[in-house]
Amino acid sequence: MNIVYEGKTKDVYSLEDGNYLLKFKDDVTGENGVFDPGANTVGLTMEGAGKAGLRLTKHFFELLNEKGIPTHYIDANIEESTMTVKPAKVFGNGIEVICRYRAVGSFLRRYGMYTEEGQPLDAFVEVTLKDDLRQDPPITEDALDMLGILSKDEYKVLKNLTQKIGDIVKEELAKKGIELYDIKFEFGRIGQKDEIALIDEISGGNMRAYKNGKYIEPLKLEKLMLED
Amino acid sequence: MNIVYEGKTKDVYSLEDGNYLLKFKDDVTGENGVFDPGANTVGLTMEGAGKAGLRLTKHFFELLNEKGIPTHYIDANIEESTMTVKPAKVFGNGIEVICRYRAVGSFLRRYGMYTEEGQPLDAFVEVTLKDDLRQDPPITEDALDMLGILSKDEYKVLKNLTQKIGDIVKEELAKKGIELYDIKFEFGRIGQKDEIALIDEISGGNMRAYKNGKYIEPLKLEKLMLED
Repeated sequence: MNIVYEGKTKDVYSLEDGNYLLKFKDDVTGENGVFDPGANTVGLTMEGAGKAGLRLTKHFFELLNEKGIPTHYIDANIEESTMTVKPAKVFGNGIEVICRYRAVGSFLRRYGMYTEEGQPLDAFVEVTLKDDLRQDPPITEDALDMLGILSKDEYKVLKNLTQKIGDIVKEELAKKGIELYDIKFEFGRIGQKDEIALIDEISGGNMRAYKNGKYIEPLKLEKLMLED
Repeated sequence: MNIVYEGKTKDVYSLEDGNYLLKFKDDVTGENGVFDPGANTVGLTMEGAGKAGLRLTKHFFELLNEKGIPTHYIDANIEESTMTVKPAKVFGNGIEVICRYRAVGSFLRRYGMYTEEGQPLDAFVEVTLKDDLRQDPPITEDALDMLGILSKDEYKVLKNLTQKIGDIVKEELAKKGIELYDIKFEFGRIGQKDEIALIDEISGGNMRAYKNGKYIEPLKLEKLMLED
């Protein structure tokens, strides 16, 4: 088992059978000690964040697999804070796909002239490049295609999958009286047919969720979602 | 004749017949005394810039009208630095449409991970919002539609017109041995049928042009283009 990538919130190890092992860490993204799912830096370390994130990821990925939505998930070991996944090729050097149900975060910062904070958005999808140096710039379908990152046909699949998965997560949260404002996904190409599949994780660290109009921190969200 | 808008590089007056008069000023956009067509501030004042910009605008708009491409242009008076135009409704609070033939400027700043300076781009179109406060953020077709700024059908027309006009300008420049790197347009809805038409201007201040690999300043470009 060799470490192949040390990430902000996860480390990645290669396994002998060709699959990969993700080790969830207790670091979450943010700035100056404040959690922000859109941030590029590790903002704080929260004990138990890794396991809690993995538990929620396991819950959602198993649900998605049941529903026939392609993901890289194989299995998870909560004790070890690890998840086994299929190998995936990312698009370019990695993209993030955001599904928005209410106007907050970078959407509001960019389009505040035309939208109010918290305004409902209909599963609005946008893509940003993973590029810390350039603050994860937003990118259009045309630019993704032209720069050879994602074809137009792949974009259609990606957008459709994003809205489907976003809606599933939103419904799951709604069962606990929680409202999903936005969520960030990563996708990759899996298998010989380069099928587009959800990769990475689905945890509190990837989304903004509110209960009774109040923002819920990732650890609290994971607790609310997984308690009986 | 009443002034209705005082712009960075032009003032706008309403005429009694319902049309508008644009008065070209000697100010050009830029920062710290350096011209930059993508900048939001007046960077410098260049004597003769207004007339030179108008002369080139007149040249291109008359050419476009001959080719049947809809514009707001009626006529121009070089002596007075004025142009008479039809009334147009802008999209939202105004958008800018950029057509790129080589990777420079904000495109390079955003997508430098995937492109090199000067890399050829095939009449690549992108849209930014006119919003000084938010540094003219780029916006996707989906967001333009969702925010009620531009419908999907209008976007198709806009993109097509942009590439057509960009190609015409590029060809005209090529006749003088000049290469167009990128150009910025504004469009509006004109007449009872809300036909999408080119508005504003086409001058050195809206484009980046190079000759023998060397950047050409707006005034120099206008001189090169209009001398016999």
